[in-house]
Amino acid sequence: MTHIFSASEAVQASKLNGSEVVSLIQSGRLTCEAYVRALLARIDERDEAVKAWVSLDRDRVIRLAQELDRVPADQRGPLHGLPIGIKDVMLTRDMPTQYNSRLFESTSPSSMDAAPVAVLRAQGALIFGKTSTTEFASSKQGGWHQNLTRNAHAEDRTPGGSSSGSAAAVADFQVPIALGTQTGGSIVRPAAFNGCFGFKPTWGAISREGLGQWSPTNDTCGFFARSVQDLKMLMNAYHVVDDAPVKALSLSSAKVAFCKTHNWPNAGPGTIDAMHKAKTSLSAEGAHIEDLELPNDFSQIIHWHGIILSKEGQSSFLGPHLVDKTKMHDSVREHVENRKGYTRKQQLDAYDNCARLRPVWDAIASKYDVVVTPSVVDEAPLGLEHTGDMSFNSTWTVLQCPAIHVPAFTGQNGMPTGLTLVSSRFTDRQLLEVADVTGRVWQKSGNALTC
Amino acid sequence: MTHIFSASEAVQASKLNGSEVVSLIQSGRLTCEAYVRALLARIDERDEAVKAWVSLDRDRVIRLAQELDRVPADQRGPLHGLPIGIKDVMLTRDMPTQYNSRLFESTSPSSMDAAPVAVLRAQGALIFGKTSTTEFASSKQGGWHQNLTRNAHAEDRTPGGSSSGSAAAVADFQVPIALGTQTGGSIVRPAAFNGCFGFKPTWGAISREGLGQWSPTNDTCGFFARSVQDLKMLMNAYHVVDDAPVKALSLSSAKVAFCKTHNWPNAGPGTIDAMHKAKTSLSAEGAHIEDLELPNDFSQIIHWHGIILSKEGQSSFLGPHLVDKTKMHDSVREHVENRKGYTRKQQLDAYDNCARLRPVWDAIASKYDVVVTPSVVDEAPLGLEHTGDMSFNSTWTVLQCPAIHVPAFTGQNGMPTGLTLVSSRFTDRQLLEVADVTGRVWQKSGNALTC
Repeated sequence: MTHIFSASEAVQASKLNGSEVVSLIQSGRLTCEAYVRALLARIDERDEAVKAWVSLDRDRVIRLAQELDRVPADQRGPLHGLPIGIKDVMLTRDMPTQYNSRLFESTSPSSMDAAPVAVLRAQGALIFGKTSTTEFASSKQGGWHQNLTRNAHAEDRTPGGSSSGSAAAVADFQVPIALGTQTGGSIVRPAAFNGCFGFKPTWGAISREGLGQWSPTNDTCGFFARSVQDLKMLMNAYHVVDDAPVKALSLSSAKVAFCKTHNWPNAGPGTIDAMHKAKTSLSAEGAHIEDLELPNDFSQIIHWHGIILSKEGQSSFLGPHLVDKTKMHDSVREHVENRKGYTRKQQLDAYDNCARLRPVWDAIASKYDVVVTPSVVDEAPLGLEHTGDMSFNSTWTVLQCPAIHVPAFTGQNGMPTGLTLVSSRFTDRQLLEVADVTGRVWQKSGNALTC
Repeated sequence: MTHIFSASEAVQASKLNGSEVVSLIQSGRLTCEAYVRALLARIDERDEAVKAWVSLDRDRVIRLAQELDRVPADQRGPLHGLPIGIKDVMLTRDMPTQYNSRLFESTSPSSMDAAPVAVLRAQGALIFGKTSTTEFASSKQGGWHQNLTRNAHAEDRTPGGSSSGSAAAVADFQVPIALGTQTGGSIVRPAAFNGCFGFKPTWGAISREGLGQWSPTNDTCGFFARSVQDLKMLMNAYHVVDDAPVKALSLSSAKVAFCKTHNWPNAGPGTIDAMHKAKTSLSAEGAHIEDLELPNDFSQIIHWHGIILSKEGQSSFLGPHLVDKTKMHDSVREHVENRKGYTRKQQLDAYDNCARLRPVWDAIASKYDVVVTPSVVDEAPLGLEHTGDMSFNSTWTVLQCPAIHVPAFTGQNGMPTGLTLVSSRFTDRQLLEVADVTGRVWQKSGNALTC
């Protein structure tokens, strides 16, 4: 006879990963309501410190959970009962979408779900609440909300941005999975700062309909989770498949590249140490390690990425600017006003050069079983105003390849550190396999803070 | 003293172009209410035959017009009082958005306007009504609405798609300007079939936030109008500028390319005749005419475009498919189910090859003052089920360059014909100048049906 979670065990359920929850609910050992109550208890305890949520209606969540518990087993989808947090730049039909913009302060729920939300809801997920973002997922310093989200591990440190609340909520066990978006480093950076997995799939793998737009060339919907298994479950839910079947990774015969990138001079001690530990531990497993130096052209990608963000932001943020530019963060206004004075020629050169380098990168990545690269400059910095810089992420975003932050170690300030794994476009499933195996080795060898 | 429109003159106001209306309202010679009543009278007369609208609330429109008429002159935007039709794949906060999909049959207005709508509304435009589309702007044969839109010039002929209602409403003088989207040929084709201007700006020039998504690589918001002046006004409204100032086009010294494309064997008599007349009339103006043959690689673009549409549609339409695939048109379902069996490798090859050819095209186009190419296979065919093929449009859509259909002549079936002008990316303003001058010559020389 299967073991049913007792009330006291259910309280601990917030520590479970999403795929464990799905399986326990499926087998009848856990109800969606008991699990959701465990999450809400965790949030009651921690919300004052973390402030990850901008829209969370406890009664609504419990009612939805009860409804889901009443659905007969044969009508349940593969994500039945799984609570998922949604970055507040994605339209939801039962909660407002505010983009952390004063212009959307008094908005109502949308008539429809954004595409990535619709896919989850159609498969039984419980759309749990909306998580904090910087203004329009773009501004560097929060937005109109005064209650800035804090790092899950330190109230006086930034959780990173722009998907601040999604990363912090997942790392803090307030929800097992959350959706985010990345245009620069908005998934990888907050995942790194909070110490959870942050996965940006290949550009185009997930529909962006109903998402706030900044840069059509870069905007990508992605995910936060505390296990790779959860990310695999999401890739099933979104029907994302590679051409080739996933190969098991054996580290003892693996070819591993460490790619410091042209941005390496910016790396701080936490990142330098993480790269060192990662190398040592994979070496100890017998992996063949190489240092990968990118061709010289790649050094300009960060610059091209910046031009694209600015020029695409010029049209993306025109509407709010016309409605009331005084209610916009200056770093968002700046794009519409083209204060950097970029020309269309610079924009096209940036497009064409990045497009030219995409297959070059794919070919380079295909030579290795694993490519490791920094996620962030260093551990999450002190202060809540600045959410950090995207310099280690822009390259992979504009190359449109999959990138995953793997939490691994602890830095000298006691904050989580980890690294990014990248691969060629549309090898998302293989990258998850690689992240799973690699992440386990790192977490075993190091002193990983969470997950 | 300025002349105020009399009631009987106002009835004729539906024949005015958008920029004329804006100027008359601005000068106080015409009220927004009188103009809107003229449009509604025209629609009362013609709606049974054309069926361009899926959402049009007469009382709401009159109320909005009255409100706009009460706005003090110093608080009016540059588009004050201008009624604009919106393709029903763009979110509107005061009308539902149904995508011609049974899945969105009972939807309510959105919490927000799609970005292209917000830009218009913020500048004083009157968001008039929603125009018909094929299902998700994708299916080849209408959608769940049984009241298929008809061609503005013949009830038994297709208006083209997917922006069927926008093109028919503008060509039929029911509204001066309407918004559409193009992923294959969904602006240029219906403009050609109905005999109005249809302008697809450079990819990225107009934000797509809040628009239904099919193919992020191709989806472009664009416009229908009866004069180039109106399109110029819209480019001002959307802050679209070229790097270089617009040069006046003098046809007597102009270098004009006629580009039949690799698709020419499909051209029917209407298109062959239009190309011939266009050449003759520009020649008569002293223009230097060349036949432009595209490099051989370009012959594959139609194929690559098809792969991209199919693979991007696979993720774009996943949500509705999961909700209830039986309520989707088979040609939309097909993408999600990847029935053509395209691989990720094919998708990436298509991306990279099209990206590689974009600057090649820009360089070719820059050698000419005008590049003329077919818009459609032939005059609008008989029947309402099939909205026509996109084979003459896909190349320019996936090259992401601006393209404008210029109405010019009349075909042997008495239907409008015309041609497309294309140019290099982000020379949108220059292309409008060229379309204005060229269009006048053609319309003068030929027997243009409308506009």
